[in-house]
Amino acid sequence: MTTKVAFIGMGVMGYPMAGHLQRAGYDVCVYNRTASKAEAWCDEYAGRAASTPAIAAEDADVVMLCVGNDDDVRSVVYGDDGVLAGMRQGAVLIDHTTASAELARELGAACQEQGFEFLDAPVSGGEAGAVNAKLTMMVGGEEKVLSKVQPMLEVMAHHVGLQGPVGSGQLAKMVNQVCIAGVLAGLSEGLAFGKKAGLDPEALVAAISKGSAGSWQMENRSHTMWNGEYDFGFAVDWMRKDLNIAMTEAQKNGASLPVTALIDQLYAEVQALGGNRWDTSSLMQRLVKLH
Amino acid sequence: MTTKVAFIGMGVMGYPMAGHLQRAGYDVCVYNRTASKAEAWCDEYAGRAASTPAIAAEDADVVMLCVGNDDDVRSVVYGDDGVLAGMRQGAVLIDHTTASAELARELGAACQEQGFEFLDAPVSGGEAGAVNAKLTMMVGGEEKVLSKVQPMLEVMAHHVGLQGPVGSGQLAKMVNQVCIAGVLAGLSEGLAFGKKAGLDPEALVAAISKGSAGSWQMENRSHTMWNGEYDFGFAVDWMRKDLNIAMTEAQKNGASLPVTALIDQLYAEVQALGGNRWDTSSLMQRLVKLH
Amino acid sequence: MTTKVAFIGMGVMGYPMAGHLQRAGYDVCVYNRTASKAEAWCDEYAGRAASTPAIAAEDADVVMLCVGNDDDVRSVVYGDDGVLAGMRQGAVLIDHTTASAELARELGAACQEQGFEFLDAPVSGGEAGAVNAKLTMMVGGEEKVLSKVQPMLEVMAHHVGLQGPVGSGQLAKMVNQVCIAGVLAGLSEGLAFGKKAGLDPEALVAAISKGSAGSWQMENRSHTMWNGEYDFGFAVDWMRKDLNIAMTEAQKNGASLPVTALIDQLYAEVQALGGNRWDTSSLMQRLVKLH
Amino acid sequence: MTTKVAFIGMGVMGYPMAGHLQRAGYDVCVYNRTASKAEAWCDEYAGRAASTPAIAAEDADVVMLCVGNDDDVRSVVYGDDGVLAGMRQGAVLIDHTTASAELARELGAACQEQGFEFLDAPVSGGEAGAVNAKLTMMVGGEEKVLSKVQPMLEVMAHHVGLQGPVGSGQLAKMVNQVCIAGVLAGLSEGLAFGKKAGLDPEALVAAISKGSAGSWQMENRSHTMWNGEYDFGFAVDWMRKDLNIAMTEAQKNGASLPVTALIDQLYAEVQALGGNRWDTSSLMQRLVKLH
Ligand SMILES: NC(=O)C1=CN([C@@H]2O[C@H](COP(=O)(O)OP(=O)(O)OC[C@H]3O[C@@H](n4cnc5c(N)ncnc54)[C@H](OP(=O)(O)O)[C@@H]3O)[C@@H](O)[C@H]2O)C=CC1
Ligand SMILES: NC(=O)C1=CN([C@@H]2O[C@H](COP(=O)(O)OP(=O)(O)OC[C@H]3O[C@@H](n4cnc5c(N)ncnc54)[C@H](OP(=O)(O)O)[C@@H]3O)[C@@H](O)[C@H]2O)C=CC1
Ligand SMILES: NC(=O)C1=CN([C@@H]2O[C@H](COP(=O)(O)OP(=O)(O)OC[C@H]3O[C@@H](n4cnc5c(N)ncnc54)[C@H](OP(=O)(O)O)[C@@H]3O)[C@@H](O)[C@H]2O)C=CC1
Repeated sequence: MTTKVAFIGMGVMGYPMAGHLQRAGYDVCVYNRTASKAEAWCDEYAGRAASTPAIAAEDADVVMLCVGNDDDVRSVVYGDDGVLAGMRQGAVLIDHTTASAELARELGAACQEQGFEFLDAPVSGGEAGAVNAKLTMMVGGEEKVLSKVQPMLEVMAHHVGLQGPVGSGQLAKMVNQVCIAGVLAGLSEGLAFGKKAGLDPEALVAAISKGSAGSWQMENRSHTMWNGEYDFGFAVDWMRKDLNIAMTEAQKNGASLPVTALIDQLYAEVQALGGNRWDTSSLMQRLVKLH
Repeated sequence: MTTKVAFIGMGVMGYPMAGHLQRAGYDVCVYNRTASKAEAWCDEYAGRAASTPAIAAEDADVVMLCVGNDDDVRSVVYGDDGVLAGMRQGAVLIDHTTASAELARELGAACQEQGFEFLDAPVSGGEAGAVNAKLTMMVGGEEKVLSKVQPMLEVMAHHVGLQGPVGSGQLAKMVNQVCIAGVLAGLSEGLAFGKKAGLDPEALVAAISKGSAGSWQMENRSHTMWNGEYDFGFAVDWMRKDLNIAMTEAQKNGASLPVTALIDQLYAEVQALGGNRWDTSSLMQRLVKLH
Repeated sequence: MTTKVAFIGMGVMGYPMAGHLQRAGYDVCVYNRTASKAEAWCDEYAGRAASTPAIAAEDADVVMLCVGNDDDVRSVVYGDDGVLAGMRQGAVLIDHTTASAELARELGAACQEQGFEFLDAPVSGGEAGAVNAKLTMMVGGEEKVLSKVQPMLEVMAHHVGLQGPVGSGQLAKMVNQVCIAGVLAGLSEGLAFGKKAGLDPEALVAAISKGSAGSWQMENRSHTMWNGEYDFGFAVDWMRKDLNIAMTEAQKNGASLPVTALIDQLYAEVQALGGNRWDTSSLMQRLVKLH
Repeated sequence: MTTKVAFIGMGVMGYPMAGHLQRAGYDVCVYNRTASKAEAWCDEYAGRAASTPAIAAEDADVVMLCVGNDDDVRSVVYGDDGVLAGMRQGAVLIDHTTASAELARELGAACQEQGFEFLDAPVSGGEAGAVNAKLTMMVGGEEKVLSKVQPMLEVMAHHVGLQGPVGSGQLAKMVNQVCIAGVLAGLSEGLAFGKKAGLDPEALVAAISKGSAGSWQMENRSHTMWNGEYDFGFAVDWMRKDLNIAMTEAQKNGASLPVTALIDQLYAEVQALGGNRWDTSSLMQRLVKLH
């Protein structure tokens, strides 16, 4: 029998993710707050849409969420119209939203109480990863639950890895974002320095990108950074949300994040330059705009 | 006729670099302040040593330096025993030391005045790169000078790139070090956070190392960082020297390096923990040692 | 007729504040979650205690709160036992808790709706200020409301200043805490440097405390900081709460707080050293403990 | 017999300092690189000028310097025209320049070798302090040397304090500058936040300046900072010189200065805005100029 999936959140990420599932033969019913996006999705993928999360979740074997932040998740999960009100016993709820580990634990407990399974499975890879089914999924939960849905997740992702108990997917994603912040800070200061020093970007990046200074961001973003092109990619607003999730968690687990905290504030300066929707590599822009 | 090379500085880097040249058929004469290392090199490579830089430089077509810092370079270049006192007209002086761009320009001018050619050619790749002839060389100077020595440099390096006029090699190396500092800061805070969060390092790194958080350092150092192993690699003392060269240059070219400057001070805290000779990835140690 | 006051929160601050009012002739009824503290207060000041905030607030002309954080305030304000359930028409609610401006606006709106007046009036001056009635009160709200209660507030404070509409008291307090963080960071790094440099603290502070480096903290804390005495004063945990309130507000108003954010993380390192309840001047301790 | 004084450096500080001495009855001979300033001084104070530092120092009981940085001091001290070439046995050299402790020790050794006494005595108090004879002098050297010149120094300063052996005056001045940096960072972020929050500066500063957030800078600079007035006072360029002296010393004594290092880079951003000669309180300007 065809596995039934409900997918809540037809944003930049959720839309193509749900599309891959439908194309792979799953029976997908989507929900989106703004109905027009759900309709567009139905047109493109010949799929179904529901008028509330609860209705979308009815009969579903698996319910997936990909919305904005903790509060957004709560608003599609709880209440009469929320997915928990519609889910059937034994169904699995998977949250792909980048959110707090606390939320994950809260959802895990709520699911357990009501007879559902739960996984937190935030993703990395950006819009391109979602469109090309090349996401990385960092999963928190029980292995036996993951094993049931692993093939389905691999329709959307090229790496699906269990990180530990519920919440661990989110924690791994926090590490990911903290690492990116540092990489981009070094790259931004390095390239802005290189500009002021009159260096040639092609020769520079050719020399330094293969060695110990190298990074995915250098390989993929140094060219656009040098040219001040930021109108694409993973938005500064999202990044600040994610870094603040990590810093809030750090207040609980006792980690110190001095460099990350500084970078988060430098992103505030990028926002002040109008960069809310710019790619995170726009961290360089405040250095370039100084003059 | 065999090209004659003088190589000044038989340290961790210079020793194997000079060895590759000798093995490749160049006629190498080495000099080292501490004579025992020069003797060891002669034994290992059946080469020659001289008792002063000036004597080593006599008859040499190419004179290479790889010593500690600006002052160290000056002490083997100038004076009666310095290489400039020994070099013959038309010879090329190449400085592989990581030093200031100002020093490079000063050496360039001194060479021009005395009828020599000059290139600054600092390297990256560490001890392993030197031993395996897989260095990256960032070269500052004139193309026609580089073209004369390119084959010789490629004996030691897998990438030899001209970055611009004299000094540009050093400037590119500064960018390299600034980028590394940021990468390692993010990685250190990320991994230390992951430890406090109870994550599994294998699953974590498997998930995040291939995507936009990925870096050479994550690929090659996250395992040792997690285990607190730092007794190898590129020393914190060297890193601080390099970052201070970059920050001094930034004061001249008007670049701002807020994150780099912070990281430099965090390295001071690593030094206070005894980490002067630890690998730069030990930036993580101060976070782990907090408790 | 004697003005009736309800005072909720018999902590370090609230206990002596309520005491001053009772001594000044106001008719004070206190409430504390942990009843023993309320009883102790009644014994010391021959006052009255109530079993819920709502009961304390009945008949009161003025209801004052001084609890921990936003959530704590909500828990004594709302619900059947909360003060709003007990207050009479025209009564004034004054929140002395250091909390968010958002909470202040929320309380202001709730009061308006139910026919009460509201002022946010966070304080500075610490335990000593509370005990000696030398607090500073930063007030947000309407001038005509403040004028009604000003004499009562001046029983506890030597400065009561209107900062603007509801929420402005909290905003001013945020500025206060941000300023303190910077002062203490400079002082900590300066004194720790001075220690390493072998300077004499008496001569040093005598020289620098009267000029442009001078501050209340230098005047009042440099001696204890030098001696590593932190077992008193305003706790690091409270400071982090306050700085995070400011940073959250900054995300809304677009301010950038790079130095503050860094210091907040350095306080995380002080907490990791066991400093949760140490005075904020313990920021120096992480520098001293490096070796 | 009248004490003879040579004063080298008729800059913003040295000019009025030398004037006070002349007015107090000392026999002052000045030298300035740019002769016109020395002439103006002679006109104003009916004093004498010499054509070289060496000639000014001849016959002098005390030789005072107040020039720019380490190199500037060396250029008026050493060589045939330097003060050491002119000084008589037993004379005292006092350096009022803000310079490194290393330079002080070097000058101390040179003086000892040649039969002179030496004190480092950098000042704080700014142009106003110099003009109004209200400087603070932080002195390094021997008590018996200081006691000889103390009355003379008190002609220019309201506080003259011995900080320890030669170099300690400079070390104390470093602490002073580090403290100022922190104070101004907190004040800048606090006031810029207050602006964004729509607060009234008068009410704000009235409330917070008397308590634990208070500082000389808040008392004396918050008004001009709020109004963006920076065209006076102690220049950003000088501040960066001083902070870099402190950071270089910290590399030797093992102190960590994370917040100071960050602030130094933020001053680089103020310089990029054109603020080289602005008062140090212009640290706020980069926050205000974000939009
Ligand atoms: N974009 C990227 O590159 C990446 C994003 N992520 C994370 O994935 C998540 C989704 O990102 P993305 O798709 O880009 O975001 P978008 O803003 O494109 O989409 C957000 C989706 O969530 C819905 N939503 C938001 N709030 C609510 C709410 N309160 N109630 C109901 N629905 C709501 C939106 O509905 P509506 O259409 O009605 O607004 C929309 O469908 C975020 O957590 C993000 O951090 C992770 C990796 C990469
Ligand atoms: N201490 C200081 O130096 C200064 C403190 N402040 C601010 O003043 C406020 C109070 O500080 P302080 O008096 O030191 O704090 P304490 O921890 O000493 O006291 C807190 C008080 O709040 C009560 N409380 C906390 N949470 C709740 C809750 N959920 N429900 C009911 N009551 C609750 C406590 O009750 P219980 O006894 O039952 O725990 C106690 O009476 C804080 O916002 C602080 O930031 C401001 C300036 C200086
Ligand atoms: N200004 C202030 O508020 C304060 C300054 N200081 C410190 O005091 C010192 C002097 O400051 P300030 O008076 O403001 O500086 P100015 O720039 O006003 O004056 C510098 C003086 O030094 C002379 N000078 C500089 N370099 C040389 C050189 N290589 N050879 C000969 N003379 C030289 C200049 O001569 P010329 O006229 O020919 O240029 C001038 O007389 C600095 O170290 C500064 O950091 C300390 C506290 C406050």
